[in-house]
Amino acid sequence: MTVPPLPAPEFGEPYLLTPGPLTTAYSVKQAMLRDWGSWDDDFRAMTRALRNRLLAMIGDGAPDYDCVPIQGSGSYCVEAMLGSFVPRDGKVLVLANGAYGLRAAQTLDYLGRAYELLNKGDYLPPRGDEVARILANDPAITHVLAIHCETSSGILNPVEEIAGATQNAGRKLLIDSMSAFGALPLDPVALNCAAFVSSANKCIEGVPGFGFVIARKDEIANAKGNSHSLALDVHAQWATMEKTGQWRFTPPTHTVAAFLHALDLHEAEGGVPARGARYTHNRDVMVQGMRDLGFETLLADRWLSPIIVTFFCPADPNFTFQGFYDAMKGRGFIIYPGKLTVVDSFRIGCIGQMDEHVMRRVVDAAREALQDMNVSSAAPPAAALEERKKLAA
Amino acid sequence: MTVPPLPAPEFGEPYLLTPGPLTTAYSVKQAMLRDWGSWDDDFRAMTRALRNRLLAMIGDGAPDYDCVPIQGSGSYCVEAMLGSFVPRDGKVLVLANGAYGLRAAQTLDYLGRAYELLNKGDYLPPRGDEVARILANDPAITHVLAIHCETSSGILNPVEEIAGATQNAGRKLLIDSMSAFGALPLDPVALNCAAFVSSANKCIEGVPGFGFVIARKDEIANAKGNSHSLALDVHAQWATMEKTGQWRFTPPTHTVAAFLHALDLHEAEGGVPARGARYTHNRDVMVQGMRDLGFETLLADRWLSPIIVTFFCPADPNFTFQGFYDAMKGRGFIIYPGKLTVVDSFRIGCIGQMDEHVMRRVVDAAREALQDMNVSSAAPPAAALEERKKLAA
Repeated sequence: MTVPPLPAPEFGEPYLLTPGPLTTAYSVKQAMLRDWGSWDDDFRAMTRALRNRLLAMIGDGAPDYDCVPIQGSGSYCVEAMLGSFVPRDGKVLVLANGAYGLRAAQTLDYLGRAYELLNKGDYLPPRGDEVARILANDPAITHVLAIHCETSSGILNPVEEIAGATQNAGRKLLIDSMSAFGALPLDPVALNCAAFVSSANKCIEGVPGFGFVIARKDEIANAKGNSHSLALDVHAQWATMEKTGQWRFTPPTHTVAAFLHALDLHEAEGGVPARGARYTHNRDVMVQGMRDLGFETLLADRWLSPIIVTFFCPADPNFTFQGFYDAMKGRGFIIYPGKLTVVDSFRIGCIGQMDEHVMRRVVDAAREALQDMNVSSAAPPAAALEERKKLAA
Repeated sequence: MTVPPLPAPEFGEPYLLTPGPLTTAYSVKQAMLRDWGSWDDDFRAMTRALRNRLLAMIGDGAPDYDCVPIQGSGSYCVEAMLGSFVPRDGKVLVLANGAYGLRAAQTLDYLGRAYELLNKGDYLPPRGDEVARILANDPAITHVLAIHCETSSGILNPVEEIAGATQNAGRKLLIDSMSAFGALPLDPVALNCAAFVSSANKCIEGVPGFGFVIARKDEIANAKGNSHSLALDVHAQWATMEKTGQWRFTPPTHTVAAFLHALDLHEAEGGVPARGARYTHNRDVMVQGMRDLGFETLLADRWLSPIIVTFFCPADPNFTFQGFYDAMKGRGFIIYPGKLTVVDSFRIGCIGQMDEHVMRRVVDAAREALQDMNVSSAAPPAAALEERKKLAA
């Protein structure tokens, strides 16, 4: 990737330093410049390609799994996965350390399905030994739901540990890999994962409009009749796609076309390892630059994902999030508010069509934004550093 | 609209003579050539504009109604409407004369909510007196669900009659106006309609990715806690939009941008009356031309919608739907298979970015397709005409 013109991509639009929707390649958007008939063979071939190419990304396990795209946002896919794979008399251990884990629990409330919630607060990771203990104490639990990367804090959760504990206890693992799949390795066979979900507008760098479930074929077959919802019934969507090659209901045709081109770019870049390496380098350059300015990350390096990073807001009374947001936006960068409950924070994403050159300009913009606001030190308040100590404890 | 170049719009793509996805203006697709942050003020303003402009289309009743966009396809919106506005102890009279009525009943099966199905078969219209009789006999029915235009046959159902019977019996009316809103008048106040749904990629000529519910404000307020689904909870979506200006979950940002431009074009064309007049003229030109070739419509003129028209397949043994489809596609026109259970049929849509000039070329293409296939007469089999007599009975 060569250095793009300042302040941002085409048309002077800002870069989205957010965990999706994110900044996509211009050619991805150009792929939307035509209309497709959803019944036509041409579009059926596109749907087939989409499913096969996503499956190819999981490697050797592909023959035992199938891919079912679902219209809507990523949360629709999480609900579809829970409603389709957790039987009505099942029980889920939900591992939460942020908004997405809690949303999964809320979804189960809607569905009226039993669950136990391990709520670790804003960011502490659910660990394998905790999972093992809970499963040992509650034989009614049939499924464990893990969040791969919890973008609320940006933490990369220890899915291998969690998967090991789940497999040892003979339970089934469901993973919300929304913001990780495509950039971080996810081998469902090695993890003994029954099903996982992700979305078009995350690390594969498509535009929003659908997500997808990748599940063991036997799980899909067994899911018949489980779903609480016609629209979100993974088995029914799969059965129609297998039989007719079509989506059951009107698909987001343009989004699918954009996604296929995004898959081309993903492959051309070198697939998951290369995508992950670029994001990791984006993160490293950006985090180093921000630390050089005096900002502090919420998480220690070990837990930092290459997806999005939470920084504490500076203690300086001249700093306001809105002022910082506006100053960054004026320089071509859209940042993201934080989601911590205890101290103020903001987030900067590392994913999307951007590279280290862009990340250096992000840091430059942050420096200038501090100057604009007359913030002399980016150091966080003492409470923030106290908060961070919890992770080491 | 000036005559576009043959064989179709830009890039030589075929016209979609289908009930959505349909052929959109090139400028609608160009509106997708940038990325938006869904949290940013710019996109919140787009969401606000979308809601307000759709509400403005219902005219004087707008102050009592609100508009709630929902990610996903139109069927997601039907499910959201049923799950949110029909209380768990409610009962729905579903008026079906095709696939969409039956799908609504299937949705209620998933939801576990009671309903009575008036199934009129492939195309016969549910009439006001029938509805009145059923409602009089079953006081448990709380809601009536009508399909405005049932695209399975292309029939324009008599919603005024149905609305009158529903109001007289003191029940609530829900309308699936998926393929009609934006081109056919729909005055929810006059119809005493509690809620109706439509979609981005129908008569407003956007691209697929979301739909919307327009409902009385008191119905939305009362919907709290009704929904079976987190993703499809109209009240929760509305409450978040009112409070934050944002969609609860990642919106299809590009689709929203395309839709706003489609609304511009809709307004510039002259709004609902002008859009409806163009489609009506499209239909009249196309139906007349097809009849001149010897094709027969399923429906008598009174029931023909300006949305999509069902024709009987010719009796000539040289005619096959696939052969006709391919010959039409080769000439730049994607047609639609029929959905009748008794006799073979196909459908031709009248909606999307096309005018009478295009429709004349559709007829020319049909004539040439018959010649290609060595079909000497487009006359349908006797069984088809027998079928049609049912409507007169």
